[in-house]
Amino acid sequence: MTSNSRADFQDPSTKGPIDRRDFLRHSAYGAVAVSALAACNNGGDAAAAAATKSALATPAAGQVPSVSKSEQMDQMHEAGIKAFPAKTEGTGCLPLAPRVDRGVKVYELEATEIKWEVAPGQRVTAMAYNGQVPGPEIRVKEGDRVRVVLTNKMSESTAIHFHGLELPNDQDGVPFITQPPVKPGETFTYEFTVPNSGSHMYHSHHNAAKQVGLGLLGAFIVEPKNPRPIERVDRDFTFILNDGLHGYTFNGKSFPATAPLVAKLGEKIRIRYMNEGMMIHPMHLHGMHMTIIDKDGWPVPAPWKCDTLNVAPGERWDVIVNCTMPGTWAFHCHILPHAESEHGMFGMVTVLVVEK
Amino acid sequence: MTSNSRADFQDPSTKGPIDRRDFLRHSAYGAVAVSALAACNNGGDAAAAAATKSALATPAAGQVPSVSKSEQMDQMHEAGIKAFPAKTEGTGCLPLAPRVDRGVKVYELEATEIKWEVAPGQRVTAMAYNGQVPGPEIRVKEGDRVRVVLTNKMSESTAIHFHGLELPNDQDGVPFITQPPVKPGETFTYEFTVPNSGSHMYHSHHNAAKQVGLGLLGAFIVEPKNPRPIERVDRDFTFILNDGLHGYTFNGKSFPATAPLVAKLGEKIRIRYMNEGMMIHPMHLHGMHMTIIDKDGWPVPAPWKCDTLNVAPGERWDVIVNCTMPGTWAFHCHILPHAESEHGMFGMVTVLVVEK
Amino acid sequence: MTSNSRADFQDPSTKGPIDRRDFLRHSAYGAVAVSALAACNNGGDAAAAAATKSALATPAAGQVPSVSKSEQMDQMHEAGIKAFPAKTEGTGCLPLAPRVDRGVKVYELEATEIKWEVAPGQRVTAMAYNGQVPGPEIRVKEGDRVRVVLTNKMSESTAIHFHGLELPNDQDGVPFITQPPVKPGETFTYEFTVPNSGSHMYHSHHNAAKQVGLGLLGAFIVEPKNPRPIERVDRDFTFILNDGLHGYTFNGKSFPATAPLVAKLGEKIRIRYMNEGMMIHPMHLHGMHMTIIDKDGWPVPAPWKCDTLNVAPGERWDVIVNCTMPGTWAFHCHILPHAESEHGMFGMVTVLVVEK
Repeated sequence: MTSNSRADFQDPSTKGPIDRRDFLRHSAYGAVAVSALAACNNGGDAAAAAATKSALATPAAGQVPSVSKSEQMDQMHEAGIKAFPAKTEGTGCLPLAPRVDRGVKVYELEATEIKWEVAPGQRVTAMAYNGQVPGPEIRVKEGDRVRVVLTNKMSESTAIHFHGLELPNDQDGVPFITQPPVKPGETFTYEFTVPNSGSHMYHSHHNAAKQVGLGLLGAFIVEPKNPRPIERVDRDFTFILNDGLHGYTFNGKSFPATAPLVAKLGEKIRIRYMNEGMMIHPMHLHGMHMTIIDKDGWPVPAPWKCDTLNVAPGERWDVIVNCTMPGTWAFHCHILPHAESEHGMFGMVTVLVVEK
Repeated sequence: MTSNSRADFQDPSTKGPIDRRDFLRHSAYGAVAVSALAACNNGGDAAAAAATKSALATPAAGQVPSVSKSEQMDQMHEAGIKAFPAKTEGTGCLPLAPRVDRGVKVYELEATEIKWEVAPGQRVTAMAYNGQVPGPEIRVKEGDRVRVVLTNKMSESTAIHFHGLELPNDQDGVPFITQPPVKPGETFTYEFTVPNSGSHMYHSHHNAAKQVGLGLLGAFIVEPKNPRPIERVDRDFTFILNDGLHGYTFNGKSFPATAPLVAKLGEKIRIRYMNEGMMIHPMHLHGMHMTIIDKDGWPVPAPWKCDTLNVAPGERWDVIVNCTMPGTWAFHCHILPHAESEHGMFGMVTVLVVEK
Repeated sequence: MTSNSRADFQDPSTKGPIDRRDFLRHSAYGAVAVSALAACNNGGDAAAAAATKSALATPAAGQVPSVSKSEQMDQMHEAGIKAFPAKTEGTGCLPLAPRVDRGVKVYELEATEIKWEVAPGQRVTAMAYNGQVPGPEIRVKEGDRVRVVLTNKMSESTAIHFHGLELPNDQDGVPFITQPPVKPGETFTYEFTVPNSGSHMYHSHHNAAKQVGLGLLGAFIVEPKNPRPIERVDRDFTFILNDGLHGYTFNGKSFPATAPLVAKLGEKIRIRYMNEGMMIHPMHLHGMHMTIIDKDGWPVPAPWKCDTLNVAPGERWDVIVNCTMPGTWAFHCHILPHAESEHGMFGMVTVLVVEK
């Protein structure tokens, strides 16, 4: 297994982020698309830019229209796909290496108010751990001793709840019930022995409808001491869903700025869905089914299969995909208005690229 | 098993659609209701018409009211039930017989813009395959060679995605990723060997939030080579949920224009739920439980029972009902505002009639 | 097992409702919180009152602010927690003792229009059985003969559907399909032998989007003749979710007026979720996982574990929690805007107190 899941998500072949040509090379539509890209060397443009250009192409009154409304729509859709994966400032979910202090893995998290680029040119107000939305991924082993040091550099109080971990009550992170709020300028330290494995989350539990919506959340993944055979995989992807003021996002980005998942033909991959939003998101993968192995970090009694998995707020679902079908596969929320408009795809859309 | 599921839904006894008297004859309330119908021979009226009559019955100022507000409400509710199943123009989900071309089953689909009568007198703008909303039902066998010929007679581009089928990438139907869009006036041909059995769907994957919402969707059912004993049934119903601009619909119609499901006492039936909308719809059957056998066309590890099944967008759930309880059973979405208002039942309501 | 589940919910130690000091004594933050309470002997105040006080503390223009905006927010959050569990008029879900008439358990339900105090000082228009929202809990045994006598003292018609019970059609409670509506002033009697065990519900099935939303609903719990070992528990809690015009409620109350669940360390408890609202509510328990044993009153084929359970309208889910972790554990809907605002926690929030 590739140990660093987030890097896989961005950089499957350890040679830098996949670029648009790589992406389309694996597509059934690749030949056409790549030549189109060759003729149009402004890959960073998103659908919005294409829409502007289409508008410019609209003829003045009295002239014969050179481009129909249908053609304009197709151009906007095409521009969105061509722009993918679009570069934006900032990457969320980067693995956070701990400092080790006498056997304790120490993670430092600093909460700040920032601007975050969700899609090309779309900068939103955010709250972030270590400047990332979602915050950095913490990945530990069952039984590890862990210290999380939270420093609040925001203008309002906060606290961290470790969602899914079965911790002593005083580490539960709920202001006025288990601890005082961590006020602006203050530092608060959590420390515990990691009790249960699985895909968990950490997030604010103070003014949380706002703070989690704006980005104070991250993956807290606990590898088991004794992995089951079904969870021995080639690649391991964390897939955090969010909605609200940042729009519809996967790992903090909206299409075309979402990162593709890339694997090689024949590989077995794991996807860890985590919903930190306010709505359900039924995730649909094209081409291959998913086998559900864990719910909220707990193994299901018997794995089951589907192609559309309904992920509700606060839930985590871990699935296995056997990458048996080469190509570029659409991968999106099946609430269609979360994924496509008349201007093309946006929001909760990415692809799984299965390379031959 | 009756081979043609859709005909069952409309015509259980092969003598034409069930009429209002048939429907109420099997009801515990039948005696009262049928005599009421006899006195009121305008069965095609829906609740709306009743509301108008009630309004006419409202006394002028200063007069003693002859009908209370509560009575008026009851009259509207009763009129809705009496109107069921109401006739409307057009029927969706009709079985589509293939043309066979040297061993290949060929299905022709023509996408057009039409008006569709969702409920009596309520005509909405729609996009339709072969003039139906949902499109015609395609039913094949695992391993069949299938050709789907799509002709676009609409004013915007489109494409078909076979949701749930594990097809080669170039048959996946996503414009600019796996194929060019099918432009107005163009024809595009899909051809593949059907790989996996179960309840699947076909629908537009271009401007899909609009096109699927307006009707470019249908059932694609793949019968297995070796059916399991649990799926040997007497009747087989396809049950497509949609919401959006057409309102809340079952197989393209709103109550009282929805079709009842009709079975005989002691029969075993299968219901294939498919959600093509934007919202969850927890489907509640009165009187008898449902046994879940398949999720997205994949057998569940162990069948499980419920009376309310949450169906999310893009999901399919197959259930078995053993018709052990005679009578007319309400069958509806349990998000109550999808099924009833102060004017009576509407939207996502039908009945299961179990005939003695 | 303590036989009366609802009393547990209110009164775990049979010495009257838990008060604020009891609640906080079990909290990791108890010491601080209790002393704060000692200084502030007006425990009945809710967050709203605190907000007013904070506003009073706001300095006049030109003065140096003595309390920052962040401090004001924290004060409001703290006041909400301190106010919990807040007293309000009326308690729903109280156990209803039957009158026994020649072996038949007779339950009398009177539907009336009332005002209901959802949270301190927040009185809403309601429809209620026996003056309670939710209505009184009916708890019988599999095979019992039961009579439910409904008297309608409201200004509109109504009827009762026993959601989940597999009754003869004429007891199904759907006006104009299985019975006439029960008009204002009328009485209607249901009588049946209880066929299937589990967590069920009774509620209006006439103008139900309004009537159920306003409170005409209750738990109908059927104890099995032969309980499985997994359902032999120390405490048994009914947990009814609702939304709509009354806001986000658990058993008819919003935080801080919700009732805490209280158990002792080492006890095994059962929670019966029932959603009578219009939205999903993914219920998240802190500190300990839940083991799902029943869906809609039917045993699941194999119990499974989670910490966040998505409960859809009309569904019931029964779960077991082994109370292994002492303390006061937040317990809430994980759609965060159903549970917290900038003014603090509200709506779908309570706690599980595990007493040492």
